[in-house]
Amino acid sequence: MSLTVFRKAHFNAAHRLFKKEWDDDKNFKVFGKCSNPNYHGHNYELEIGISGEIDPDTGFLIDLKVLAQIIKEEVEDPFDHKNLNIEVPEFKNTNPTVENIAIVIWNKMRARIDSKYDISVKLYETPRNFVIYNGN
Amino acid sequence: MSLTVFRKAHFNAAHRLFKKEWDDDKNFKVFGKCSNPNYHGHNYELEIGISGEIDPDTGFLIDLKVLAQIIKEEVEDPFDHKNLNIEVPEFKNTNPTVENIAIVIWNKMRARIDSKYDISVKLYETPRNFVIYNGN
Amino acid sequence: MSLTVFRKAHFNAAHRLFKKEWDDDKNFKVFGKCSNPNYHGHNYELEIGISGEIDPDTGFLIDLKVLAQIIKEEVEDPFDHKNLNIEVPEFKNTNPTVENIAIVIWNKMRARIDSKYDISVKLYETPRNFVIYNGN
Amino acid sequence: MSLTVFRKAHFNAAHRLFKKEWDDDKNFKVFGKCSNPNYHGHNYELEIGISGEIDPDTGFLIDLKVLAQIIKEEVEDPFDHKNLNIEVPEFKNTNPTVENIAIVIWNKMRARIDSKYDISVKLYETPRNFVIYNGN
Amino acid sequence: MSLTVFRKAHFNAAHRLFKKEWDDDKNFKVFGKCSNPNYHGHNYELEIGISGEIDPDTGFLIDLKVLAQIIKEEVEDPFDHKNLNIEVPEFKNTNPTVENIAIVIWNKMRARIDSKYDISVKLYETPRNFVIYNGN
Amino acid sequence: MSLTVFRKAHFNAAHRLFKKEWDDDKNFKVFGKCSNPNYHGHNYELEIGISGEIDPDTGFLIDLKVLAQIIKEEVEDPFDHKNLNIEVPEFKNTNPTVENIAIVIWNKMRARIDSKYDISVKLYETPRNFVIYNGN
Repeated sequence: MSLTVFRKAHFNAAHRLFKKEWDDDKNFKVFGKCSNPNYHGHNYELEIGISGEIDPDTGFLIDLKVLAQIIKEEVEDPFDHKNLNIEVPEFKNTNPTVENIAIVIWNKMRARIDSKYDISVKLYETPRNFVIYNGN
Repeated sequence: MSLTVFRKAHFNAAHRLFKKEWDDDKNFKVFGKCSNPNYHGHNYELEIGISGEIDPDTGFLIDLKVLAQIIKEEVEDPFDHKNLNIEVPEFKNTNPTVENIAIVIWNKMRARIDSKYDISVKLYETPRNFVIYNGN
Repeated sequence: MSLTVFRKAHFNAAHRLFKKEWDDDKNFKVFGKCSNPNYHGHNYELEIGISGEIDPDTGFLIDLKVLAQIIKEEVEDPFDHKNLNIEVPEFKNTNPTVENIAIVIWNKMRARIDSKYDISVKLYETPRNFVIYNGN
Repeated sequence: MSLTVFRKAHFNAAHRLFKKEWDDDKNFKVFGKCSNPNYHGHNYELEIGISGEIDPDTGFLIDLKVLAQIIKEEVEDPFDHKNLNIEVPEFKNTNPTVENIAIVIWNKMRARIDSKYDISVKLYETPRNFVIYNGN
Repeated sequence: MSLTVFRKAHFNAAHRLFKKEWDDDKNFKVFGKCSNPNYHGHNYELEIGISGEIDPDTGFLIDLKVLAQIIKEEVEDPFDHKNLNIEVPEFKNTNPTVENIAIVIWNKMRARIDSKYDISVKLYETPRNFVIYNGN
Repeated sequence: MSLTVFRKAHFNAAHRLFKKEWDDDKNFKVFGKCSNPNYHGHNYELEIGISGEIDPDTGFLIDLKVLAQIIKEEVEDPFDHKNLNIEVPEFKNTNPTVENIAIVIWNKMRARIDSKYDISVKLYETPRNFVIYNGN
C-alpha cells in the first residue's frame, strides 16, 4: 500500500529577484519591487511529502523524526535567517524565485532520501503565493 | 523542469441552488436550505494552479502579477459582491453549485492562459467544503 | 479564579448594506458594492467568549455542550442559509453591518446566559474583516 | 467532467504506537515517546475527497449532506473521544500510526461509497504531520 | 511604553475528565464522552503572552529565545506525549479540563517569569474550544 | 455602544536586529542569528483594531474602505518589499524589533485616525511570534 506522509517546516530569509547578466533597469522592469537591491524577505513555510510503501513491522512509511532531522540539516540550518542571494551557495548563479528555491530543496532532499521513495516539495513564499515541485 | 505555481484570491457572493425546470418543492427536497429563494451567501476562497516549465531567464513559471491581474478580471471583478444566479451570465442556466462555479472559473482561465500551461482550480465554498477541478 | 472560555460557530448568509430611508444612489454612495440590491453573502465565523468563575466541582466555567446548544438555537438556526435583510426580524429596521450583527448576537446570548457571566462576541465577516463586541 | 469534492471532519482520540510482538524496550526504541504505555492523544483533522462525474441534473458530484452522514457513521462516531488501541476493533492487531488510521478510514469509506467514485483520505495527526492515501 | 509579546507552543496529550470523588455514572452524566475511562486526547495549542515595558537598549520586551526555553521546560517537556491524569502531578487531584490546564500553565510560568511582567495564557483544546486566563 | 473593528493587511520586508552603538560581537551575542549583517526577512501580518461608537446612520464604526486605504498609505506602501533598516526612516535610529515596528505603525495610524477612536496594533513577525500594542 502506497501513501504519502508530510512534514511541515519553516525558515525566514531575505532575498532579491535578480539576474546578474541584466542591469538594474532590466531587473526592475521584469521583477518589479521584488528586485529591490536592498533585499526584502519572507517566512517560507515548507511541506515535504514522502511517498512509498508502509513498513509492515512499524506501520511507518518513514520515521518522521529522521525526516525532520534531514529537513533541519538540508533546509532549516543552511537557509534560516540567511540572505539567500549572498549566503546560500545554490543561489550564487540562480535567481532565488520561489520556483527555484523549491527545486533546490527537492534536489537536496533527493540526495538524502532513499531512492525507493518519491519526494514532493510544497513551498509557500507568502500565504497567498506557493509552488509544488515533484521532481518531474 | 515542470512545476505548479499557485495564487490565492477570494470573492463574496450570494447564490441559491436551484434548477429552474423543477418547482420549489422539488428544489427544496434536493437542495435543502441551500435552495432558500431569498438566497444565502459565502466567502469563496480560490487557489489557481498553473503547471508548466520554468523560464530559464527569469526563474518564473509565470509572472504572478500577470496571473493575479487575469484572476481579477475573470473572477473577482465579475463575481465579487454579486448574486451569482441573477448577475453572472454563466449561471443563468447553470446551477451555481461549488462544482459548477469551479468549472466556470476553469473555463474562463483556460481562455486567457497560454495553452502550454495546465490549469487547476481549488475553490472553497466554506472552510469545510471545497472542490478541485483540473479540466479533465 | 476568573477566566474566559470560547466556542466557535459559523453561519452562511446573504445580506445587503442598505438604509431604507435613503434612495439607491445614496445607499450606493455610502456602502458601495456592499449595497448591491440583489444581495451578496458571507461565511460568518463566530467566537463566543464567556467570562466568569470556575465551578470547583467540575473544573468547568460553563458546560460547552450547553453553550454550543444555545449558540445553535440563538444564532445558527435563525441565521444560517438565510437572507439577513428579509428573513431575520432583528434586521428589518437595522442595517446588517458586521457591527450590528455582532450586537444582535450579543443581545440574544445575553438573554440566555446567566448574568453572573460576561459575554464577548467576535464575528468575522471575511477572513480579513471582523469585530469584537463586549456589551459596553 | 470529472472533479473532486472534499468534506472536512475531525475526531479527538488517544493512542499509543505499539507492536505487541515487541517488548516495551523495543517499542520505546522504535516509537520513542509515542509509545508511552499511558497513551497520549491528538485532534485528528480529516479531509475526505470524492472524485467522479457531476450529475447534470443537480450540478452535484455527490450530496455533501449524505457524505457528511457517512463520515459521521464510519469515522466520527466510532473514533471520537475513544482510545484507538483499546476501543476501535480495527487497531486491535494494527498499530494506530497516522498511516494505518488513514488506510482504515479509506477502507471504511470504500465500503460505503458507490464504486463509480474514487476516494482520497487526508489525515492530520497534528498541524505539522499528515498523510494522504488514495487506495493505491 | 507597555505592550504584549506572544509565543506559540504545542503539546499532544491524553486525558479524561473525571472527579475521583464521583463514581463513573456521575462522571459520565456530567462529562459525557470526555469521561471515557480509557482516555482520549488532544493537540493542545498554546499562546503565552508577556506584558511589560520595552528595554530601550534592545527594543525587546523579553528575549523570545529565553521565553521559548522556559515554555519548553515548564510545559512542553512535562506535558507532551503524556497522560495528564496519570503522569502530570498537578492533575493528580485536579480535573484536567482546559480551564484547569490553563491555570496550571499560568502558575508554572508565573514562578519563572520576572514579576515586573504580566502573563496571559491562551490554550486551545481543539480548534473550536479554547480559554484565556490572565491570573485574575 | 462601543466596539472594535479589525482589518488585516500584510507586508514582506528584510531587516536586521542591530544596535549601531554596539559592535558586531555584542550585537550577535544579544540578537543571535537575527543580527545577520546580510539581513533576513519576514511576511509581516498585521491586524489594525479601531474602537469607538457606531454611527447610528450607517451602522459602521468606521468605513473599512477608508481604513484600508490609510493602512495602505501608512504601512503597506512604505514598508512592503523594503529593507526596514536601510529604507524606512523610522528605523534609522531604532532597532526594527517586532515590538518597535508595532509602535511605529501605531504612531503612524494615530496621526491619521480621528482621536475619538482608540487604536490597537497586532503584528505577526512569524506565525509563532507576535505582539499587541494599544498605545498605553
